[in-house]
Parts: sequence; structure tokens; C-alpha cells
Amino acid sequence: MSKNHTAAIILAAGKGTRMKSGLHKVLHPIGGLPMVSHLLGTLDGLSPERRIVVVGSLQEQVEAALPGLEFVTQAEQLGTGHAVMVCREALKDFAGDVIVLFGDVPFTPLNVMQEMMAARASSANPGIVVLGFEPADPARYGRLVRGGDGTLERIVEYKDATEEERAITLCNSGMMVIDGNKLFGWLDKLSNANAAGEYYLTDLVAAARGDGRNVAVVVADEADVLGINDRNDLAAAEAAFQARKRREMMTNGVTLVAPETVFFSHDTIIEPDVTVEPNVVFGPGVTVATGAVIHAFSHLEGATVAADAVIGPFARLRPAAHIGKGAKIGNFVEVKKADIEPGAKVNHLSYIGDATVGAKANIGAGTITCNYDGYFKYRTEIGAGAFIGSNTALVAPVKVGDGAIVGAGSVITKTVEADALALTRASQNQIEGYAARFRKKSEARKAEKKGK
Amino acid sequence: MSKNHTAAIILAAGKGTRMKSGLHKVLHPIGGLPMVSHLLGTLDGLSPERRIVVVGSLQEQVEAALPGLEFVTQAEQLGTGHAVMVCREALKDFAGDVIVLFGDVPFTPLNVMQEMMAARASSANPGIVVLGFEPADPARYGRLVRGGDGTLERIVEYKDATEEERAITLCNSGMMVIDGNKLFGWLDKLSNANAAGEYYLTDLVAAARGDGRNVAVVVADEADVLGINDRNDLAAAEAAFQARKRREMMTNGVTLVAPETVFFSHDTIIEPDVTVEPNVVFGPGVTVATGAVIHAFSHLEGATVAADAVIGPFARLRPAAHIGKGAKIGNFVEVKKADIEPGAKVNHLSYIGDATVGAKANIGAGTITCNYDGYFKYRTEIGAGAFIGSNTALVAPVKVGDGAIVGAGSVITKTVEADALALTRASQNQIEGYAARFRKKSEARKAEKKGK
Amino acid sequence: MSKNHTAAIILAAGKGTRMKSGLHKVLHPIGGLPMVSHLLGTLDGLSPERRIVVVGSLQEQVEAALPGLEFVTQAEQLGTGHAVMVCREALKDFAGDVIVLFGDVPFTPLNVMQEMMAARASSANPGIVVLGFEPADPARYGRLVRGGDGTLERIVEYKDATEEERAITLCNSGMMVIDGNKLFGWLDKLSNANAAGEYYLTDLVAAARGDGRNVAVVVADEADVLGINDRNDLAAAEAAFQARKRREMMTNGVTLVAPETVFFSHDTIIEPDVTVEPNVVFGPGVTVATGAVIHAFSHLEGATVAADAVIGPFARLRPAAHIGKGAKIGNFVEVKKADIEPGAKVNHLSYIGDATVGAKANIGAGTITCNYDGYFKYRTEIGAGAFIGSNTALVAPVKVGDGAIVGAGSVITKTVEADALALTRASQNQIEGYAARFRKKSEARKAEKKGK
Repeated sequence: MSKNHTAAIILAAGKGTRMKSGLHKVLHPIGGLPMVSHLLGTLDGLSPERRIVVVGSLQEQVEAALPGLEFVTQAEQLGTGHAVMVCREALKDFAGDVIVLFGDVPFTPLNVMQEMMAARASSANPGIVVLGFEPADPARYGRLVRGGDGTLERIVEYKDATEEERAITLCNSGMMVIDGNKLFGWLDKLSNANAAGEYYLTDLVAAARGDGRNVAVVVADEADVLGINDRNDLAAAEAAFQARKRREMMTNGVTLVAPETVFFSHDTIIEPDVTVEPNVVFGPGVTVATGAVIHAFSHLEGATVAADAVIGPFARLRPAAHIGKGAKIGNFVEVKKADIEPGAKVNHLSYIGDATVGAKANIGAGTITCNYDGYFKYRTEIGAGAFIGSNTALVAPVKVGDGAIVGAGSVITKTVEADALALTRASQNQIEGYAARFRKKSEARKAEKKGK
Repeated sequence: MSKNHTAAIILAAGKGTRMKSGLHKVLHPIGGLPMVSHLLGTLDGLSPERRIVVVGSLQEQVEAALPGLEFVTQAEQLGTGHAVMVCREALKDFAGDVIVLFGDVPFTPLNVMQEMMAARASSANPGIVVLGFEPADPARYGRLVRGGDGTLERIVEYKDATEEERAITLCNSGMMVIDGNKLFGWLDKLSNANAAGEYYLTDLVAAARGDGRNVAVVVADEADVLGINDRNDLAAAEAAFQARKRREMMTNGVTLVAPETVFFSHDTIIEPDVTVEPNVVFGPGVTVATGAVIHAFSHLEGATVAADAVIGPFARLRPAAHIGKGAKIGNFVEVKKADIEPGAKVNHLSYIGDATVGAKANIGAGTITCNYDGYFKYRTEIGAGAFIGSNTALVAPVKVGDGAIVGAGSVITKTVEADALALTRASQNQIEGYAARFRKKSEARKAEKKGK
Repeated sequence: MSKNHTAAIILAAGKGTRMKSGLHKVLHPIGGLPMVSHLLGTLDGLSPERRIVVVGSLQEQVEAALPGLEFVTQAEQLGTGHAVMVCREALKDFAGDVIVLFGDVPFTPLNVMQEMMAARASSANPGIVVLGFEPADPARYGRLVRGGDGTLERIVEYKDATEEERAITLCNSGMMVIDGNKLFGWLDKLSNANAAGEYYLTDLVAAARGDGRNVAVVVADEADVLGINDRNDLAAAEAAFQARKRREMMTNGVTLVAPETVFFSHDTIIEPDVTVEPNVVFGPGVTVATGAVIHAFSHLEGATVAADAVIGPFARLRPAAHIGKGAKIGNFVEVKKADIEPGAKVNHLSYIGDATVGAKANIGAGTITCNYDGYFKYRTEIGAGAFIGSNTALVAPVKVGDGAIVGAGSVITKTVEADALALTRASQNQIEGYAARFRKKSEARKAEKKGK
């Protein structure tokens, strides 16, 4: 077999009412990535032959967000058992193992999935492997009742449990691996004769045992099976994700002065010996090379930062901002779709968009690339070693040649030749005593207004 | 009775030396509101007939901050008993229940106050109801000694307590409800023959019991009776307030990516399905409608944000900034007293103050409304669909008509007609080779300076 | 003796591989100061006669960072015993006590050092005083085995320890004080006949006892002997430092609305009754006087803020920014090497560098001091009560006189006289209907592009 004969079923039909959202629960992002995509990413490590997502509420949203997967519609949400039943047609020719996962339990680790698969493949040949966990507070979870041989006898819901059963601390995560040859036969035996009128996947245990097959248990950590039901849970999952990322970064040689104030995306890449000051947010798609410093209050997204570059404080790098080796992007500067070449400096209060800034160019404070006319975007090209005076507007499309100087306060609309000085400036006029007269007049007006 | 016959006495005479502040302790804000106002807000739920604040140090500050209340001056601070004694004149015709609260215990919950009132009204008819709590570390608190019938026998200060009494974990919060018919009679029996020379309210218990009345105890959580004595306590109270607000927001369907980095005011209103990124500060008076996104590093105060608007990162909305549906306020943008109408964009590095920005108008980077001449403020009106080129100064009072375009780098002082183009621009001049010559000269000067 | 006869040896030869850094471990900063400098600062309290740093890897870095100390090179790192052996020449004429400290254990407190010295000086006259601690999790540390008289019998490495010895919770910190008369004699007895081929300082205990001298133990808190081995440890040390600073600040009367979001440097000075909002970073060298308010998202470094000044939100003060009494620095404003005199306002989107802004001057939004021509820096002087219109560039060297007004959008290159109005402005031109025609044309082009 080139691939493992495994089909994964990911339950994602319920939209999650307690999220109070127009967005499907499994699409709420963690580290900038939909929670279900974290699970799918981990699942790739298992190389399953099939990946079936059971969708229902807001199913177009889920399908649009997860290209390349199979989708099965569960029109009515009649329980976890029912969610697997609707996969019957899709899996009619499938005879391998079926792993059932939850789209809202995004951090189920690969090693746990592998352990479940290994238990299924063991010589005991269990019909089902159930994933249990021992929560700090087991109160509301179903309990896993094991026999003397360690196999699972039954799963008992908390409300139906005896005092003795409630004393059991091993609880049901809901996840399982099932012998695919038997799955749908056992599902046929499920009943919805219960208060909710639903089919429960947990009842498969009885069906398998009735069929003479044993049921194994694998135990995970509570953090591994963290389910997300409302935005408090979502924030807790985000916090767990960030804590993991921060530890990884620091272990790899990145200094995080205040790790709890730095936020990463799922795909942030930072090389060793980068320093990240407090309060930095990395949106998706950022790479930072060794020796760079990211000062406090910086926001980066879709950007690359080369070695020894210095960013911030108060810098914003937007998608396709490429900051060259040793370049500097200072405070209150926004860079978008622009190449800032090695050693160039954009130190203050500027907007550089759709532009190239040549090596060692110096961009004065308050420089704006006017890249948009309301309809189209145009590029600005600034040559190597150019010096752009402060408060300058560069009206794209426009070029400033290598080594050219633009005088402060200019509006540049035409090419500036290399090594030339360009400027647009009216002469400075002065009216003596005007300010004194203005103050006198204004104070009189102010007094008059107050008098009224 | 249209109102409950209750008088509340709020003790707020001591300024709080350990705060080391020129501001009275009870006026230090939590969630942007003076701590004592949190207590008073809760007290409103009890609808007391009278609300008397006992003031002393810095009493003008306290009186100015709390309009509409009664104030009684405690000129010398001679103990909690004395603080109530000074209310004798104010309450001479009052015969209901008296609840004694502390201005520096701001989070006493309504249900605890109600429980105390209910205990007073119970058939046992206790003369006093004392509020106790069981702290994690009871060490320094006075202990509540109860008899076999559960009523309070006495309150014993820690320093006077026997080993056996010190083993009691139920402690005195200081708050009580007292039969107003008896209060001042019992107060007459208090003595200040103690080391501090003070009158203690706790001695009322003995007075009531001596008068043949029983004393009841109500027990609160430690967090409910958190007192504030220094700025560490203040920060802890602020943290408790923020934690509560964050949970409420998330439960109501607001996504807080990193809840611990978002700071609310007491009156912040956010609708479901708003996303708030890390590091956002909400000052008082902010409302955000559903679908809006508040990006990282934003600061909002006195502003309204309509549905689907996008704010930040690095945006500052000041009082009376009204951001319309789907409008965008981008990075390094400040908006004050301005209506940004639906779909308008102010994406970069701008100051919009005392202005109207029409629907779908596009405000270029570096646009400034010059609203102030040092004496008066003036308005700028920008029409629907107008396009303001970058680095433009709009010198108010001034109007830009619907659909008009202003060229980059302009200083607009006169009306721009609808659909017109306006600009102020000197022609672009170029001096060839100037930059090369300047560099040569400057490098020579630099070398010369070094040589010296 | 004018000084204590003490020599301190600070071990700092190993660069710390697990830091994964090109910077020597002991130079990684905590609170903006190299970690070893925290230790050296504490050590000053002991007034040692000699301060010897044992260097090896990256020794030039360490020597350059620590002027005024003695350095001894340990070319090969052959263990802690060897690190002290290499000091033999330097200490050949020294006969006092020798205290051995670690450059990567930066928070060893003065009182612990003093307690060790006092134990050495006690009548028991121990040859060595070893510093122990009782960690929450003692697993991997060497254990201190004491005799019935409380003196140290031996230090046993965990891997060599019996079950009984492993049950001991008192562990070895590595730090010690040694009788300098004996130190090198005892070192001669050390052997490197062990798995690592290293000389262990811990073996000195046996040498001293073999010489008939007893060995004393002083016990520290675990937090006092926190060693730093990787960037996770570094972040934990930074967090401990910040927590201590925040507590100190609040106890001294500074309001920190959200202490966990405010970051101090080792030398930050803030007077009572200053309010610091969430998310503020203090780089080295900042002083803030009473009554000042530092709003959220501010970044200060090398700056002084006088009483009642208001900074931020989103302000950046760089070195030598001096903000006068009651002055205001607003959002998206950067100030560097500038005196902002009392009552002056720089409220929005400005860069003020190499400048003086006179008392009560008002600097409009978007004002830039053009202080740099690519080679030299020049000063801008703005007089008291001057009013600079928005979007103005002040091309230094330049002066604006007291009470002068500069019109919005100007580029000022020449002196403006006191009380005069100065401006550089082209006249405003209008082309009627241009915007309407432009839109029509652009929409057609857009449609055409789409059509392709």
C-alpha cells in the first residue's frame, strides 16, 4: 500500500450556536488559520486515504474554506451517530479503518491519532478504539467503564451514571477509530429512543461488543482534546497555540522580551538571534531573518524581513513588503507591496506602497507614495542612494533616479534624473506683524463670544 | 412605600495614605470610572431612600465627583464608629435600616447587599447583620465568633484573639446593616478607650447584644469584599474588572483574539461577531456594531463604529468620531468629532477633526484637516465620493464638493466645487547634477570635520 | 581597611550554546541591561576589593561590555574548578575571602552574598561557605549532605547519589565563599578523572575537609539563584524583573492600569501620582515627574517628562527628548533630541528632531523638522507661543520667532520673524468638471481591462 488504508471523518455540521456568530464554528481562526485546518494539518501526518468532512449548517462556508476535501451533507443534525451514518454512500467501497474526529477539537495531536491507529492494528484486534482523557474536573463528561482486562465495557453518560461510575475519572473524548468493515453494520443497530431523539456514536461500543468484538481505550491529555464551544473556549485555544509557538521560538534562539505580548500566526518563521520586543503582532505569511530586530508595537503581515533589518517601533508591514538586509523601517511607517533594498531607511511617518526603494536610499519623514488614483494602482521607483526630502508626495507612476535628491515638501509627478535635485516649491513670503494683529483680533472675538 | 426604607452610608473620609496620591482614594478609576461610583451603581439596585457619603480628607474632590448625593463631613477621622456617628443629624428623622458600605470596597455585589437586607428583615429580627467572608489567608482580619445558634457573639480583633479564636476562618468585612431605630443609641455606648483612641463600628455588636438583640451573619466571597489600600490593590481590582468584562464580551459573541490584552471601560458596548485583535484599548463611551473588526493597537474613546467598519491597526478614534457602515480607518489615523460616512476610507497617516467625510470618499495618506487657528475650531466638509490626494492640508472652514478631486500635496483654503479638480502646486524644477555636487562637497566637509 | 578584603570571581567563560546566539549569554539584556551587569550592580553593595571576570568564548564582547573590571582568560572550558584555577596569577598576592558567582545567575541578592560573607567570618571559621537552595523540583541538582552539626559533609551529584541522598531537598547552587589563603592549595588537589574530564569546584569541599576545615551552608530562595540557559529562562528572568519593578512602582504611588503590559528598564524613574495606561514600553534612561500621564501605546527611551505633561497615546520619545511641564505630545508623534518647553503642544503626526519648541507653542499636525541632509544634522528653533500650521516642513537650520505663525503646508527655509506670518503657497486652481470626466474615462478603462 502506498497509503494507509484509513478514512478520516471530521464532524463539522453544527455551526456552534454558543459562538453567536454568522461564521461557522470550525472556521473561527486560531493563529490566523481556521480551527478545523489545524486539525486537517495534523491529520496529514496520518496520510489518510480519504478525508470526509460532514457538513450541515452554513455548509457553503465550510466547503469554500476547505478546498480539496470530500464533503457529505448532514441535513438535519440528529447526533454524532447520525453524522457518521450519512457517510455510508461515500464509504460504501471502503474497507479500512475509520477515524472519527471533531472539527471543533483542533489540537488533537498526531501521536494520539497514531496511538489510536496502532491500538486498532494490535493483535487484540479491537473493533473500536475509543479516545479517553482524565480531566481536572470530570463532572459533566461521560465515563469510560473498563473491565478487568482493561478493555472498554461501556460508556455511561454522567446523568445515567451510578455513584460508583461517577467516581471514575477516565472520560470520553468522543473520538474513535472503528473497523470500517463493520462500521455501518453496527450503526444499523443504533437507536434514537432517547430524550434528545438522537443517534449517539458512543452506542457503537455496545454494538461492537454485542458482535463479539472488544473495544480498546487510548488515553490522551486533557489539553489534547480541548473542544471549542464559545468564544471563551476559542480564546483559551488561541492562548494554548500562542504559548506553544512562543516556547518553540525561544527554544530556537529567538529573544522574546515579553513572550506573553507577542502574537504569532500558524506560519510565522523567525530565525535565531532575532529580538522581538514587547507587543508585536505577526499576521500570516511573515519571515524574519537572523539578526533582525522587531521593536515594540509592530504589526507584520505577509512580509519578509532580511538579516539585520530593524523594524519599528510602531511599524506596519503589509503583504509583499520585502525589507532588505540592514534596512530600517521606523515609527509610524506603513510599507505595502514594496521592495526596500539593503541599507535603505524609511524612518518616520511615511507610506510606501507599490514601490521600489533602492539600496541605501533615505526616505524623509512624511513621504507618501501616491499609488492610487481611485481606480488604478501605479508604481514608484526610487533609485539607490536617493534622498527624498520630508513631506514629499511622489505621484506614481514616477521614477527618482539613483543618487537624486528631492527637496522637502515637493510633489513629484515627473521623472527625476539620477544625481539631480528636484523640487516644487513656492517662494517663502512673510507678512510682518500679522501674527500679532491676528492674536489681538482673535482674543477680542473670543472675549466677545464669552460676553454673549 | 414607593421606596425601600433604607439609608446607605458610604464611608469615604480617609484619603488613603498608602495610595501616595493627591487624588482621594475612592476617586481612583477602575474601568475608567471612580471606584466609589462602581459601588454606587450597584447600590442603585437596592433603591435606598438615602445615600450619604461620609467625607473628610479632600472632601471637595469627592463632592465634585459625585453629584446628587448627600455628604456629611467627618472632620477628624476617629474610626469607623465615629464616621457613622457624624451622620446623626442627617438621619435624625430616619427610622429604616442603615447599610454601612466602604467607598474603597467597590465590588460589593447587589446580591450580597440584598442578602444582608433580607437577613435584617427575617423573623429572627436581628438588630445588626454583619457581612463576613472566608479569606484564603485570614491572618490579619478580625474573627467572627458565632454561638451555637449561629448568631454572632462577638467580633474579636486578631491581636486580641486566643489561639482557638484565631483558628476561626470566618472574618469581618466591616460592612453591616443596622436597625436604624437603634443605631444612634447603640453608638452612644461606644468607647474610644483603646490604643488608637478610635471608635470602632464592630463594638456595635456588643451594644446590640447588651440591648437583648441578636446579631446575624451573612457570608460573602473574598472577591466580593476586596478592599483597595494601595496601587497594587488598585491594579488587582482593575484586573478583576477587566477579566469580568472580557468574559461577558466573549460569552456574548465577541471574538477577543487575546483577551488579556484588551481593555474595556465600564460602559463599552460591543455587538456579537465583532473581532477585536490583540492590544486594543477602549476608553469610556464606545459602541461597536456587529461585523466590525478592530485591528491590533487601536485606541477608541467616545466613538461609535457602525456595522462592518474596519478600524486600525494603529488607529485612534477620539470623542465624537462616528465611523459609518463599512467605512475604513487605517493606520496612524486620528479621527475626532467627525462623521465618516458609510464606505468612506481614511487609510493612512491622517488627522480628521471637526469634519464630515461623505459616503465612499477616499482620503489619501497624509491628509490633515487644519481645524484650529490657535483660538477657534472650524469644520471641514468633504462630499460623497470625493478623492483627496495625499499630503493635502484642508484649511477649515472649507468644503470639498461631492465627487471632487484634490491633487496631492495641496493646501485647500477655498471651496472646491462638486466634480471639479482642485490643486495648489508649484511647477517641478530640476537642477541636473546638483545632488552629485552636493555629495562631493558634503563628503569633503565631513572629512574636514573628522580631520580636526 | 578602607575596603572589605574580598575578591569576587564571576564565571562568564561559556557562551551558552542553548541560547543559540552570536551574543555571549551573560550579555543578553534583562530590563535593557546585560544580565551580568545586574549581578555586578548587586555586587557593588559588597564593595569587593577585586572584581575578576573569567572570560573565554566571545571574550572580546564581554570585555567591551564591562569596562573597569579585571579579566582572566579561560582558554579552554574545563569546568568550574578550572575557571577558578586560571585566576591564580591574578590573585597571587591576595589573602582575603574569595566569592565565586555566576554571570548567568544575575539576580543573586546582596543579602544572600552578605550572609555568605558573614558565615565565613563567623567564629566557626569555615574554610568554605556553600550556597544551597531548596527547589520546588530538586530532581537534577547536586545534593548538599550535611552532618549532625549542620556543616556540609559533601556535595553529591544526582547521578552518583543513593536513594537516601536523593531524598535530600537541599541542593547546590554552585556559588561559594572560600578562604583565599587556602583556595589555590585546595584547587591543587582537584582531579579531572571523571567522565567529562573536568575540574569541579564542588570538589573543594572534600579538599577543605581533608585539610581539617569545616564547610558551612547558607540557604537561599530558589528565585535568588535562577540560572539562565536558554531564551525561555531569559524570558522568565525578564518577567521576574518586570514583576518586581511594577510592584515597586505601584507601591511608590504610580498607577499602572494594567501592570502586566508595562515594561520598565533597569533605570526607569517615575514619581508618585503618574498614571501609566496599558501597553507602554520604557527603554533605558527615562524619568517621569509627578502628575504626568503616559497614555497607552507609548514608547519612551532616554527621555525626561516634566510634571503634568501628557504623552501619547502612540507617542515615541527618543533619546534627549525633554518634555516640559504641562506640555503635550500626542498621537503618532516622534520627538528626538528636542526641548519641548512648558505648555507646548505637538498633538499629531509630527517629527520633531534636533529642535527647541518654545513655551506654549502649538505645532500643527504633520509638521516635520527636516534635520538631516544625508550628511549633517541641523537645529530648528521655534519661539514661544509660535503657531506652526499643519503639514509644514521646517528645513533646518531655521528659526521661527516668538509668536510667529506659519501657514499650513509651508516649506520654511528662512528665518521667520517674531510675530510675523510666513507661508509658501501656490495659488489654488480649479478645473471644473475634471473629476467627473476623469471618473468616466477611468471607468471605461477599467471596463476595457476587465473585458480583456
